[in-house]
Amino acid sequence: MWLGELSERSGVSIPTIKYYRREGLLPPGEAVGAGRAQYGERHLARLRLVRSLVGVGRLPIARVREVLAAVDDDSVTVAAAMGSAHHQLSPVVDEPSERSSQRVARAIRAAGWDVETDGPHARAVAAALDGMDAAESPMTDEALAAYVEGAAVVGRADLAGVADLGRERAVERAVTGTVLGEPVLLALRRLAHEELSRRTRG
Amino acid sequence: MWLGELSERSGVSIPTIKYYRREGLLPPGEAVGAGRAQYGERHLARLRLVRSLVGVGRLPIARVREVLAAVDDDSVTVAAAMGSAHHQLSPVVDEPSERSSQRVARAIRAAGWDVETDGPHARAVAAALDGMDAAESPMTDEALAAYVEGAAVVGRADLAGVADLGRERAVERAVTGTVLGEPVLLALRRLAHEELSRRTRG
Repeated sequence: MWLGELSERSGVSIPTIKYYRREGLLPPGEAVGAGRAQYGERHLARLRLVRSLVGVGRLPIARVREVLAAVDDDSVTVAAAMGSAHHQLSPVVDEPSERSSQRVARAIRAAGWDVETDGPHARAVAAALDGMDAAESPMTDEALAAYVEGAAVVGRADLAGVADLGRERAVERAVTGTVLGEPVLLALRRLAHEELSRRTRG
Repeated sequence: MWLGELSERSGVSIPTIKYYRREGLLPPGEAVGAGRAQYGERHLARLRLVRSLVGVGRLPIARVREVLAAVDDDSVTVAAAMGSAHHQLSPVVDEPSERSSQRVARAIRAAGWDVETDGPHARAVAAALDGMDAAESPMTDEALAAYVEGAAVVGRADLAGVADLGRERAVERAVTGTVLGEPVLLALRRLAHEELSRRTRG
């Protein structure tokens, strides 16, 4: 397809497609003389992925490039490429307290999870616990264990079926699912509070 | 205690305390002649609650006043006062699609929850599902059911022990727990993805 059709089918404007191409986020099309080029389905898939990383994931171009490098490196498994996208998505947090870090590490070990206890996600959990401590509203160890359990239930649902998708689509799903699933989960938690309060009231 | 001590113990500045008093968020102290007043523990508890509603909950003063009215109305149960705070916290969302609203209603019924299927939280869930549809990354019914289950696990942990607290403290906990618990849950979900990706990779 020509550039115009690629733009139409992807919903990405021609100037934006040219920008992505200059930034190396989109491979060149197949040259067909006189500065014109043909694009294929893989360009369409790549544009979808870039759009999800830039739009939904709000990643800066340099981080998008790192995710794409993992997607394009066949020696990296699909799961690892998804992990790369996840890592890029995670906010950089202040150094959490030693106490909260150790609480998180214990909770992770108790659940039998095999993850870095000082990776970006574990640090984000510890920093959030610090926030609750600072507000004099600390989370108990029992509650933390329940949160780990709830996160596992939800996380399994997020990843169900993803491995069967192609590399590009799997990483796209990892990004959109992670970011777009968040408001669903938070609103359902508030709905659960409503349900539980109602029962207490009754 | 005098105003100065109230300020020191609550961590709220004197001008802010005076502002809260003018806005009716803090009952007057006991007058002790010549424009001076004495404050007690209930003023301290109220200041903590107002601070959590304004600071952590980011509620405008008019909404804070509605939550406090529920806290002060003895005919309202503690659970209902917490529910009032929760409702005030929820963002007002666009009208969700009929399709997503019905999916949420079905998921809620399947879980046996006795909540409003067109209340603010259920609408927020439906709007978030619309967002996933728009990104061409729809959530399956199986995933939605798992999210409901995960939210129930976490919600139960949030409310454990809250009923035993006093009215003021219970509502404060409902607000801080709801808002401050969110980053803990989201970071743990990402950690769960890391764990699950790692297992798939292995």
